[in-house]
Amino acid sequence: MTTITATISQTIIERFKQIRTQTEKICSPLEPEDTVVQPMIDVSPPKWHMAHTTWFFEQFVLGPYLKNYKVFHPNYAYLFNSYYNSVGNRVQRAERSTLTRPPLRDVYAYRRHVNEKMGELLLTVSDDQLEELLPVLELGLQHEQQHQELLITDIKYILSTNPLLPAYAEASTALSSKYPGKPKFLEVPGGIYRIGFQGEGFCFDNELGVHEVLLADFSVMNRLVTNAEYLEFMQDGGYSDFRFWLDEGLAMVRNNNLKAPLYWLEQDGDWYQYTLQGLEKLDLHKPVSHISFYEAQAYAAWSGKRLLTEFEWEATTQVYQPKAGNFQESGIYEPTVATQSLGMQQLYGDAWEWTYSAYHPYPGFSTAAGALGEYNGKFMINQMVLRGGSCATPERHIRTTYRNFFHPDKRWQFTGIRLAQ
Amino acid sequence: MTTITATISQTIIERFKQIRTQTEKICSPLEPEDTVVQPMIDVSPPKWHMAHTTWFFEQFVLGPYLKNYKVFHPNYAYLFNSYYNSVGNRVQRAERSTLTRPPLRDVYAYRRHVNEKMGELLLTVSDDQLEELLPVLELGLQHEQQHQELLITDIKYILSTNPLLPAYAEASTALSSKYPGKPKFLEVPGGIYRIGFQGEGFCFDNELGVHEVLLADFSVMNRLVTNAEYLEFMQDGGYSDFRFWLDEGLAMVRNNNLKAPLYWLEQDGDWYQYTLQGLEKLDLHKPVSHISFYEAQAYAAWSGKRLLTEFEWEATTQVYQPKAGNFQESGIYEPTVATQSLGMQQLYGDAWEWTYSAYHPYPGFSTAAGALGEYNGKFMINQMVLRGGSCATPERHIRTTYRNFFHPDKRWQFTGIRLAQ
Amino acid sequence: MTTITATISQTIIERFKQIRTQTEKICSPLEPEDTVVQPMIDVSPPKWHMAHTTWFFEQFVLGPYLKNYKVFHPNYAYLFNSYYNSVGNRVQRAERSTLTRPPLRDVYAYRRHVNEKMGELLLTVSDDQLEELLPVLELGLQHEQQHQELLITDIKYILSTNPLLPAYAEASTALSSKYPGKPKFLEVPGGIYRIGFQGEGFCFDNELGVHEVLLADFSVMNRLVTNAEYLEFMQDGGYSDFRFWLDEGLAMVRNNNLKAPLYWLEQDGDWYQYTLQGLEKLDLHKPVSHISFYEAQAYAAWSGKRLLTEFEWEATTQVYQPKAGNFQESGIYEPTVATQSLGMQQLYGDAWEWTYSAYHPYPGFSTAAGALGEYNGKFMINQMVLRGGSCATPERHIRTTYRNFFHPDKRWQFTGIRLAQ
Amino acid sequence: MTTITATISQTIIERFKQIRTQTEKICSPLEPEDTVVQPMIDVSPPKWHMAHTTWFFEQFVLGPYLKNYKVFHPNYAYLFNSYYNSVGNRVQRAERSTLTRPPLRDVYAYRRHVNEKMGELLLTVSDDQLEELLPVLELGLQHEQQHQELLITDIKYILSTNPLLPAYAEASTALSSKYPGKPKFLEVPGGIYRIGFQGEGFCFDNELGVHEVLLADFSVMNRLVTNAEYLEFMQDGGYSDFRFWLDEGLAMVRNNNLKAPLYWLEQDGDWYQYTLQGLEKLDLHKPVSHISFYEAQAYAAWSGKRLLTEFEWEATTQVYQPKAGNFQESGIYEPTVATQSLGMQQLYGDAWEWTYSAYHPYPGFSTAAGALGEYNGKFMINQMVLRGGSCATPERHIRTTYRNFFHPDKRWQFTGIRLAQ
Repeated sequence: MTTITATISQTIIERFKQIRTQTEKICSPLEPEDTVVQPMIDVSPPKWHMAHTTWFFEQFVLGPYLKNYKVFHPNYAYLFNSYYNSVGNRVQRAERSTLTRPPLRDVYAYRRHVNEKMGELLLTVSDDQLEELLPVLELGLQHEQQHQELLITDIKYILSTNPLLPAYAEASTALSSKYPGKPKFLEVPGGIYRIGFQGEGFCFDNELGVHEVLLADFSVMNRLVTNAEYLEFMQDGGYSDFRFWLDEGLAMVRNNNLKAPLYWLEQDGDWYQYTLQGLEKLDLHKPVSHISFYEAQAYAAWSGKRLLTEFEWEATTQVYQPKAGNFQESGIYEPTVATQSLGMQQLYGDAWEWTYSAYHPYPGFSTAAGALGEYNGKFMINQMVLRGGSCATPERHIRTTYRNFFHPDKRWQFTGIRLAQ
Repeated sequence: MTTITATISQTIIERFKQIRTQTEKICSPLEPEDTVVQPMIDVSPPKWHMAHTTWFFEQFVLGPYLKNYKVFHPNYAYLFNSYYNSVGNRVQRAERSTLTRPPLRDVYAYRRHVNEKMGELLLTVSDDQLEELLPVLELGLQHEQQHQELLITDIKYILSTNPLLPAYAEASTALSSKYPGKPKFLEVPGGIYRIGFQGEGFCFDNELGVHEVLLADFSVMNRLVTNAEYLEFMQDGGYSDFRFWLDEGLAMVRNNNLKAPLYWLEQDGDWYQYTLQGLEKLDLHKPVSHISFYEAQAYAAWSGKRLLTEFEWEATTQVYQPKAGNFQESGIYEPTVATQSLGMQQLYGDAWEWTYSAYHPYPGFSTAAGALGEYNGKFMINQMVLRGGSCATPERHIRTTYRNFFHPDKRWQFTGIRLAQ
Repeated sequence: MTTITATISQTIIERFKQIRTQTEKICSPLEPEDTVVQPMIDVSPPKWHMAHTTWFFEQFVLGPYLKNYKVFHPNYAYLFNSYYNSVGNRVQRAERSTLTRPPLRDVYAYRRHVNEKMGELLLTVSDDQLEELLPVLELGLQHEQQHQELLITDIKYILSTNPLLPAYAEASTALSSKYPGKPKFLEVPGGIYRIGFQGEGFCFDNELGVHEVLLADFSVMNRLVTNAEYLEFMQDGGYSDFRFWLDEGLAMVRNNNLKAPLYWLEQDGDWYQYTLQGLEKLDLHKPVSHISFYEAQAYAAWSGKRLLTEFEWEATTQVYQPKAGNFQESGIYEPTVATQSLGMQQLYGDAWEWTYSAYHPYPGFSTAAGALGEYNGKFMINQMVLRGGSCATPERHIRTTYRNFFHPDKRWQFTGIRLAQ
Repeated sequence: MTTITATISQTIIERFKQIRTQTEKICSPLEPEDTVVQPMIDVSPPKWHMAHTTWFFEQFVLGPYLKNYKVFHPNYAYLFNSYYNSVGNRVQRAERSTLTRPPLRDVYAYRRHVNEKMGELLLTVSDDQLEELLPVLELGLQHEQQHQELLITDIKYILSTNPLLPAYAEASTALSSKYPGKPKFLEVPGGIYRIGFQGEGFCFDNELGVHEVLLADFSVMNRLVTNAEYLEFMQDGGYSDFRFWLDEGLAMVRNNNLKAPLYWLEQDGDWYQYTLQGLEKLDLHKPVSHISFYEAQAYAAWSGKRLLTEFEWEATTQVYQPKAGNFQESGIYEPTVATQSLGMQQLYGDAWEWTYSAYHPYPGFSTAAGALGEYNGKFMINQMVLRGGSCATPERHIRTTYRNFFHPDKRWQFTGIRLAQ
C-alpha cells in the first residue's frame, strides 16, 4: 500500500467509524422491544436497520474483497437482505417483525464483527483493489446514512403507536418561537438549466444523465409553509372541500377520516403534536411537516399557488442559497422556525419538499449491472420526487441534485411545503 | 336566429345526431343483462354509459339553457352522475351494477327525450346563447365519444368474463396476415419543440398550457411491437426475470400470476386471443395489445430499448405522419397488421401507446371554475400518459396533442408498445 | 305401465307442473337486468335460480333415466351446478353475475325443454324405474321449493339495493293493523321427546336419525315478537349496550354500524321498512323480521328471557298447534299480525324462528353416497337452526321436523324471534 | 383474623406464589423482543400475558379490597384489560404489539408490586372480607393458569414464525418411542347422565346448570389418534378429497393450501415437526396435534368413525379413567406416546379433544352481574367444545366437567383426535 492510499484508507476508516457509530447512537435510547416491531409495512424494525446496513458491507465489500472472509452467521443474508432479487431469497418486507431473534446484543456483535473486518480489509488492501472497492464502500456509507434518516422516522412512528406516547429524547428547553413574518416570493428567471449531477464526489445513479431543461420564469416562496398557515387551511374547511384535492387524495382523506397532519392531536380545542421529545403543544411558527403529497397539493390549490417541479427546485438552488440548514447533526429532530430574513431559507434541511414531479428516469439513465443496479431504477413509478433533505438527513449526505422519492400518500417522513407561482 | 347561426345549428344537429346514434349502434348487439353488470370497478355497465352521456347534456346544456326544461326523471341525476362532486350526491362507482332499474327501454326513452329537447333547443336558441352553450355542447359530444371507446372496451371485458365467451360481432373473414418486416428506427432531431394544443377547434383543458420543451436527438420505431415480438419476450422468460421489471410491476405480475397479455389463452400449446369476434387463434403479425404499462416497460427493458416520453411522441408527429389509421369507424375493433413500409406507421389508431410520462399538469394549467373543472385536473396523479388513439377511438375525436391516461396496471384498453432509443 | 303407476305419474306430473309454474310466476314481474346481478355473495341471480333448478332435473333425472336424452346445452352443467363437487367443475358462487348469457329467454326455453322431457319420461317410464326415480324427482321438487323461497328473498335484496327502491308487487291495500295484545307464555312439560322425522312422505336427510331427548319444563311465548316490542329494545339503547350481546354479534353491529333490522329506514324521526310492495311506514304490530341470530339473542337477553333450542321448539309443536299460517301461497310476502288469541300462534309461516341450537348432525346421521350426499351434511358447522317456515315458504314444503339453517349474522331471510323462559 | 382464616390465608398465599412464579418460569427463556410481537391476532405477546394476569388481581381484588391501594401505573388498566367492556376502554386485541413500552423489566416490577400487595392484603383482611374476596381471588388464579397454557402455545407460535426456528427449551433426550398398538373401542352404555359441575371447589360458570341428558349406547377409542395414523389419512389423499370435509373446512384447506397439521414440515421426503425443543423428526407414535376441528372431523369421516359429543365425552369419564396424564408440570410441552394398555388412556392431558358440540350455554346458564359476567358467556357462538386438557394445561386446573372452546379453524393449541362409533 502506498502512502497515498494509506492516507485515503485512514480517511475512509475515520468516516466509516463516524457513520457506523452514529447509527448506534441513534438507537441507544431504545428498549429491545422497540427494535423489533413493525407497526406498518413502510416502517422497518430498528434492529433490522442496524443489521441490514451491516449486511450490505458484508455482502458487497467483505465477501468479494477480504480474503477468506467467513460470514458472521450463515442465515443473516436471508434475514437482512432488503430487496435485492439478485442476491437470493429473503424475509419479506411485511414479515420483519418475526425477527425476534437474533436478539439485539447479537446484532451489536454482528456490527462489531463487520466493523473490525472492514478495518482489517482497509489496512491490508492493495492499491488496485482499493480503487475497485471504494465506490462500493462509499455506496455502503451513503446507504447507511439513508437508513439513519429512516431510523429516526421509523422510531418516531413506532413510539407514536404506543399508547403511552413515550419520549425518545429529553424535552428540548422550548425556545420561545418567533413569527418569521409573511412569506416573500423570489424570482427565478426562465431559460435553459443544466439538471443532474456533474463533477467530483459521490452521487446516486438516479442523479446521472445530466441534461438541459427549458424553464419559463417563476417565483418561489422564500421559506417553508408554517403550522399556522396550514392551520388556516384546515380551519377554512380545507380537508372537506373537494375542489382543492386530487381525486385519489380525497379518497385517502375520506377513507381514513384525516383532518390534520400525521402526529397532530386535538385535545379540548388545542392542537398538540407528537415529537421525539413527546407530546408538545403545536408551535405555530414551525414549518408544517408529516403531510402527504396530496395534502401539500391541496394546500397549494387552496392558497391559489402551486408546488414546484423538481427542475424548478434545482434551478432555484442554482440562483439562490448554498447548502445550510437544520440537519440530523443538530439533534433537534424537528423542523425549526425560519428567520425573519427576506432571503431564501430552508431550501435544505428541516423538511423534504414535495415537488409535482414524478420519480422517473432522467434521459440516458441506465441501471448498473448486478445487484446494485436494483438500488434505484426499479422504483421509478408511482412515486413523487422530494428535494432538499430534512432535520433527519445527515448534512454530508445531501446535495442540490439529490432526488428522494415517496408515494404521494406517505406521511411518516419529515415532509413539508414550499410554494411557487 | 341569424342565417349563420342557423347553419351552425344545423351542422351541430347533424353532428349531435351522428354521435348519439353511433353510441346506440355500439350497444345494439347486447342483451339487457349485458348492460347492467360490472365485473370490475374500472368497467361501467353499458346501460350506465348510455344514460350518463345523456345526463351530461341534460345537466350542463338543457338545464341551464332550455327554458322550462323539466328533467326526464327526478332521480336520474343521482343515478347517472359519474364523479362531479359539484353536482351533488351520486351512486358510487363500485355500485353501478345496482342499477337494474330503470330497465334498458327506459334508458332508450331517456336518450330519445334528451335528443328531442336538444333539437328543440338548437332550433330556438338565440345567437348569444348559442355562443355560450356551444363549448359545453362540444364538450358533451367529445365526452360521448370518449364513452364510445369505453363502451367497446367495457363490453369486451364483460363478455370475456362470461364462461361462454360469446362473440359481440360476426367473425371477420380473417385476412391472411402478412409479416410486416423488421422494425426500423427513424430519427427525430433534438431541439426546442412546442407542446400542447394551439389553433382552432376543440381540445381538452389538459392539452392547454402550450409550452416549449428541449429534447435531445432520439429515434423511434416505425411501427408498433407485434404479437410475435412480444411472444419472443415471453418465451425468453420475460415474465419471471425480475431484472426487466419495475418493482411494483413485478409484484402485480407475481400476485396475479400473469404470464401473458389480457385476453390471451393457451390451449394445448397454442395461443388464442379473446376478441370481440370471439376466441381466435393469435395473429402473430398484429400489434400486441391489452398490456399494462409495466409490461410495456419490461418489454422495452428486455429489448434494450426504452419507451418514449409524451413530449418525444408529440415531437415525432411534428416530424412524421399525419393523422390516419385504424379507428372505431373501421368496425374492426382490433389492431391491424402494419404494412411493410419503412416509413412511420400506426402513430394513430390501432393501439394507444404507453409513454414513460406521468399524467401531470402542463405549466400554466388551471382547472375551470364549476363542475366542468372536475373533468381532468383531479386525476393528475399516479397515471401514465398514452398517445395516439386506438381501434376503438373515433377518428374525429383524436388529435396529435391528445393526452389519454391510465394507471400503469390497467390492461383492458387497447394499449400497445412503440420503442425509442 | 300399470294403471296404478299411471295414476301416480299423473299426480306427479300435476305436482311437477304446479311447482315449476310457480317458480316462473315468482319471476314474472322482473326485468331481464334484475335477473343477472348478485349484490352480495349470499344472493344468487334469479336467472341462475331458474336454470339451476332445471339443471337439477336434467342432471339427476333425465340424464340417468330418459333414454337417449341429449342435454339442452353442453355448457349448462358447468354454468348451473351449485355446489356438487361430485358432478364436476362449475362457475364459482361469487361469479354468478358473469352469466349475462344465456339471455333470459334461453333460460325459459331451457325450462320448457326440460319440462317437456320430464313429461315424456313420466309417461313412458317402467314401473321399476318409476320406483327408483321417484325419490330423486321428489327431491328435485323439494329443492325447487327451497329455491322459490330464496328467489323471493333474493329478489327483495336485489331490489332493495337499487337506489330507486322499486316495488316488486302492487301495494297491498294496507289492512289497518290491530294490537295483538301482550304475549302469554304457555307451558310445555318436561320429559322425553322423540325428535326427528318418522312416518310416510318426504323429508331431508338432516331430519333423520330419530332420537329421544330429555327436556326440563319450560314455557313458550304464544306469538312472535312484534316490531313495536323490538323498537322498545332499540329505544332502550339495545344496539349499543354490550351486556346483551354475544361478542361476535357486538363486533358485527359495530363494524357495520347497525342500528335496526335490515330494510328499516329512519326518515325525519319515522321508521319505514322496505317491503316487496315498496317502502312502507313501519307496521308496529307485525312480527319483527330480517334480523340476525345475534339480534334475536340480544333482544332475548334484554328482555330477561331466552331463545328456544330446536328440541324445545319441536316438542312445543307436539303439544300445541297443528301446521297453519301465512305462507308463500298467500302472496303477501310479509309476516302478518298475530290475532288477540291467547293460544299458540305463528309457529308456522310468517317468519323463521332462530333457535339457540347449532346445525349439527343428529345421532346416527349419515350422508348418502354420491352427489346427493352433498345436499346437507357438509354445511353442519357454524350455522344455527331455524324452525317453522316463513311467509316465503311454500306451505306443502314445511314440516314440524324441518331444519333450516343459516349463519348467525344473516339477515336477508324472513327471520324472527320467539322467546322461552 | 381467626386461626382458621389465617390458615386459609396461608394456604392461599402459598398457592398464589406457586402459580405466579410458574408464569415467570415459563417466560424466563425469552428474549425481551420475543415478549412483544404478535404474529397473528389469536396470539398475545408474552409481556402482555404477564401484565394482564397481574392487572386482573389489581382490578378485581386489590382495588376493591385493599384499603388505600394506589394502582401501580395509571395507564396500565388501559393497556392490559383484555375484553372487559364493563371496565372501560382498552388497547384493541390486534394492537397488542404496540406495547413496546413499558419494557419487560417494568412488567416484572409490576408483578412484584402486585404480589407484595396481595400478600399484604391476605395477611390483614378481615374474615368477612376474606369470604367475599376468595372467589374472585380463586378466579384470578384459575385465570392465570389459563394464561400459562396460552403462554406456552403463543410462545411456540411466535418462535415458529422466526426464520431461525429457535428452540425454547433444551432438546429432550429423545425417548425411543414404541408402537402403542392398534386402538380398541370401549363401550359406554346408553342412559341418562348428569352433566355439569356439582360439588365443592372451583368451576367456571359455563360448567354450571347441571342437567341430565339421555344418551344412546356408543363406544370410544381407548387412546388418541397417532401421527402415523394421521399420516395414513394424508397419504390417502385426505386433504384433497372433498367427500370427507365440511364445506367451510374444505375452503380453509384450499385457500391456505394446507396439506398437514400446523408445525409439520416436509424436507426431502421426510416429515419434521417444529416443537419447543426445535425442529425434530416426526415421532410417528405420538398423538397427532395442532389440527383444526375441520381436520379432526375429516379424519373421522375418512376412517368411517365420528367424533364424540361433549356429553358423550363427559359420560365416558364417568365410566372410565380418573384424572391423570401428561400435563404442564411434566415440562415436556409435547403430547407423549400412549402405552400398550388396552384400557382407556389419555382422556386427560396430552392434547385437547375436539368434540362435535357447539359451545353453547347449558340449560339454566346465566351470566354473573358485573365485569366478571363477561368471562365466558359472550363467547358462546361459532366455537366448538374441547375436553380433557393438554400437555400445556396445569394439572390442578383441569376437571372432568371443564369446557374449553375454540373456533373450528384454530390450530395453534395442542389439539388432537379421539374417535367414537
